[in-house]
Amino acid sequence: MADEDKQTKIDVTINHQTYTIVGTESKEHVEQVANLVNEKMQDIREANKHLDTTKLAVLTALNTMNDYLKLQKEHEELLTLLEEEN
Amino acid sequence: MADEDKQTKIDVTINHQTYTIVGTESKEHVEQVANLVNEKMQDIREANKHLDTTKLAVLTALNTMNDYLKLQKEHEELLTLLEEEN
Repeated sequence: MADEDKQTKIDVTINHQTYTIVGTESKEHVEQVANLVNEKMQDIREANKHLDTTKLAVLTALNTMNDYLKLQKEHEELLTLLEEEN
Repeated sequence: MADEDKQTKIDVTINHQTYTIVGTESKEHVEQVANLVNEKMQDIREANKHLDTTKLAVLTALNTMNDYLKLQKEHEELLTLLEEEN
Protein backbone atom coordinates (compact mmCIF):
# COMPACT_ATOMS: atom_id res chain seq x y z
CA MET A 1 0.00 0.00 0.00
CA ALA A 2 1.34 3.40 -0.98
CA ASP A 3 2.05 5.86 1.80
CA GLU A 4 -0.63 8.25 0.58
CA ASP A 5 -3.25 5.51 0.99
CA LYS A 6 -2.34 4.91 4.64
CA GLN A 7 -5.48 4.74 6.77
CA THR A 8 -5.75 7.40 9.44
CA LYS A 9 -8.11 7.78 12.40
CA ILE A 10 -9.22 11.33 13.05
CA ASP A 11 -11.54 12.43 15.88
CA VAL A 12 -14.00 15.20 15.08
CA THR A 13 -16.76 16.72 17.21
CA ILE A 14 -20.19 17.12 15.66
CA ASN A 15 -22.94 18.63 17.76
CA HIS A 16 -21.02 17.92 21.02
CA GLN A 17 -20.46 14.25 20.15
CA THR A 18 -17.10 12.78 19.08
CA TYR A 19 -16.85 10.70 15.90
CA THR A 20 -13.77 8.80 14.77
CA ILE A 21 -13.34 9.08 11.02
CA VAL A 22 -11.27 6.30 9.46
CA GLY A 23 -9.93 6.97 5.99
CA THR A 24 -7.15 8.19 3.79
CA GLU A 25 -7.99 11.91 3.90
CA SER A 26 -5.72 14.49 5.54
CA LYS A 27 -6.53 15.79 9.02
CA GLU A 28 -7.13 19.25 7.51
CA HIS A 29 -9.64 17.92 5.00
CA VAL A 30 -11.56 15.88 7.61
CA GLU A 31 -11.66 18.87 9.97
CA GLN A 32 -12.91 21.12 7.16
CA VAL A 33 -15.69 18.63 6.39
CA ALA A 34 -16.63 18.45 10.09
CA ASN A 35 -16.64 22.24 10.47
CA LEU A 36 -18.93 22.66 7.47
CA VAL A 37 -21.33 20.00 8.78
CA ASN A 38 -21.36 21.68 12.21
CA GLU A 39 -22.10 25.08 10.66
CA LYS A 40 -24.93 23.69 8.54
CA MET A 41 -26.44 21.84 11.54
CA GLN A 42 -26.29 25.02 13.60
CA ASP A 43 -28.03 27.03 10.83
CA ILE A 44 -30.79 24.41 10.53
CA ARG A 45 -31.21 24.25 14.31
CA GLU A 46 -31.60 28.02 14.51
CA ALA A 47 -34.39 27.89 11.93
CA ASN A 48 -36.06 24.87 13.63
CA LYS A 49 -35.41 25.06 17.37
CA HIS A 50 -37.48 22.02 18.37
CA LEU A 51 -35.80 19.40 16.20
CA ASP A 52 -34.21 16.40 17.88
CA THR A 53 -30.62 15.55 16.93
CA THR A 54 -31.51 12.72 14.55
CA LYS A 55 -33.90 14.89 12.54
CA LEU A 56 -31.38 17.71 12.60
CA ALA A 57 -28.68 15.40 11.22
CA VAL A 58 -31.01 13.97 8.54
CA LEU A 59 -31.99 17.48 7.42
CA THR A 60 -28.29 18.41 7.31
CA ALA A 61 -27.61 15.39 5.10
CA LEU A 62 -30.56 16.31 2.81
CA ASN A 63 -29.43 19.91 2.59
CA THR A 64 -25.85 18.90 1.76
CA MET A 65 -27.03 16.40 -0.85
CA ASN A 66 -29.15 19.16 -2.41
CA ASP A 67 -26.03 21.37 -2.66
CA TYR A 68 -24.10 18.43 -4.11
CA LEU A 69 -26.67 17.74 -6.85
CA LYS A 70 -26.82 21.41 -7.84
CA LEU A 71 -23.04 21.63 -8.09
CA GLN A 72 -22.94 18.33 -10.00
CA LYS A 73 -25.43 19.72 -12.54
CA GLU A 74 -23.33 22.89 -12.93
CA HIS A 75 -20.15 20.82 -13.30
CA GLU A 76 -21.72 18.55 -15.93
CA GLU A 77 -23.01 21.54 -17.89
CA LEU A 78 -19.51 23.00 -17.92
CA LEU A 79 -18.04 19.69 -19.11
CA THR A 80 -20.66 19.43 -21.88
CA LEU A 81 -19.88 22.97 -22.97
CA LEU A 82 -16.18 22.15 -23.14
CA GLU A 83 -16.83 19.02 -25.20
CA GLU A 84 -18.94 20.99 -27.66
CA GLU A 85 -16.18 23.58 -28.03
CA ASN A 86 -13.52 21.00 -28.80
CA MET B 1 -43.21 36.48 -5.98
CA ALA B 2 -42.68 34.77 -9.34
CA ASP B 3 -44.46 31.47 -9.96
CA GLU B 4 -41.20 29.54 -10.11
CA ASP B 5 -40.38 30.74 -6.58
CA LYS B 6 -43.63 29.40 -5.14
CA GLN B 7 -42.97 27.47 -1.93
CA THR B 8 -43.91 23.80 -2.02
CA LYS B 9 -44.21 21.23 0.77
CA ILE B 10 -42.99 17.78 -0.17
CA ASP B 11 -43.04 14.72 2.12
CA VAL B 12 -40.09 12.35 1.86
CA THR B 13 -39.26 9.24 3.87
CA ILE B 14 -35.75 8.89 5.23
CA ASN B 15 -34.88 5.80 7.24
CA HIS B 16 -38.61 5.04 7.88
CA GLN B 17 -39.34 8.56 9.15
CA THR B 18 -41.30 11.19 7.21
CA TYR B 19 -39.83 14.67 6.70
CA THR B 20 -41.67 17.60 5.15
CA ILE B 21 -39.35 19.62 2.93
CA VAL B 22 -40.43 23.20 2.36
CA GLY B 23 -38.81 24.97 -0.56
CA THR B 24 -38.93 26.00 -4.17
CA GLU B 25 -37.46 22.79 -5.64
CA SER B 26 -39.48 20.43 -7.85
CA LYS B 27 -40.97 17.24 -6.40
CA GLU B 28 -38.63 15.20 -8.66
CA HIS B 29 -35.53 17.01 -7.38
CA VAL B 30 -36.52 16.64 -3.70
CA GLU B 31 -37.27 12.95 -4.21
CA GLN B 32 -33.92 12.44 -5.95
CA VAL B 33 -32.14 14.11 -3.01
CA ALA B 34 -34.05 11.91 -0.53
CA ASN B 35 -33.32 8.72 -2.47
CA LEU B 36 -29.60 9.48 -2.57
CA VAL B 37 -29.54 10.20 1.18
CA ASN B 38 -31.42 6.95 1.86
CA GLU B 39 -28.98 4.96 -0.27
CA LYS B 40 -25.99 6.51 1.47
CA MET B 41 -27.47 5.85 4.94
CA GLN B 42 -28.12 2.25 3.99
CA ASP B 43 -24.53 1.78 2.74
CA ILE B 44 -23.12 3.27 5.95
CA ARG B 45 -25.45 1.13 8.10
CA GLU B 46 -24.33 -2.02 6.30
CA ALA B 47 -20.69 -1.18 7.03
CA ASN B 48 -21.44 -0.26 10.68
CA LYS B 49 -24.37 -2.37 11.89
CA HIS B 50 -24.35 -1.15 15.49
CA LEU B 51 -24.74 2.57 14.86
CA ASP B 52 -27.73 4.35 16.33
CA THR B 53 -29.85 6.48 13.99
CA THR B 54 -28.36 9.81 15.09
CA LYS B 55 -24.79 8.67 14.48
CA LEU B 56 -25.85 7.12 11.19
CA ALA B 57 -27.41 10.42 10.09
CA VAL B 58 -24.35 12.44 11.19
CA LEU B 59 -22.00 10.10 9.31
CA THR B 60 -24.24 10.41 6.24
CA ALA B 61 -24.00 14.20 6.47
CA LEU B 62 -20.19 14.01 6.85
CA ASN B 63 -19.88 11.62 3.93
CA THR B 64 -22.05 13.83 1.69
CA MET B 65 -20.09 16.95 2.67
CA ASN B 66 -16.87 15.10 1.82
CA ASP B 67 -18.25 14.32 -1.67
CA TYR B 68 -19.35 17.95 -2.02
CA LEU B 69 -15.91 19.35 -1.16
CA LYS B 70 -14.16 16.99 -3.57
CA LEU B 71 -16.51 17.95 -6.41
CA GLN B 72 -16.13 21.63 -5.52
CA LYS B 73 -12.34 21.31 -5.78
CA GLU B 74 -12.64 19.57 -9.16
CA HIS B 75 -15.08 22.24 -10.38
CA GLU B 76 -12.80 25.07 -9.25
CA GLU B 77 -9.81 23.46 -10.94
CA LEU B 78 -11.78 23.25 -14.19
CA LEU B 79 -12.81 26.90 -13.90
CA THR B 80 -9.20 27.95 -13.27
CA LEU B 81 -8.04 25.96 -16.28
CA LEU B 82 -10.66 27.67 -18.45
CA GLU B 83 -9.61 31.10 -17.21
CA GLU B 84 -5.97 30.34 -18.01
CA GLU B 85 -6.91 29.24 -21.52
CA ASN B 86 -8.86 32.40 -22.30
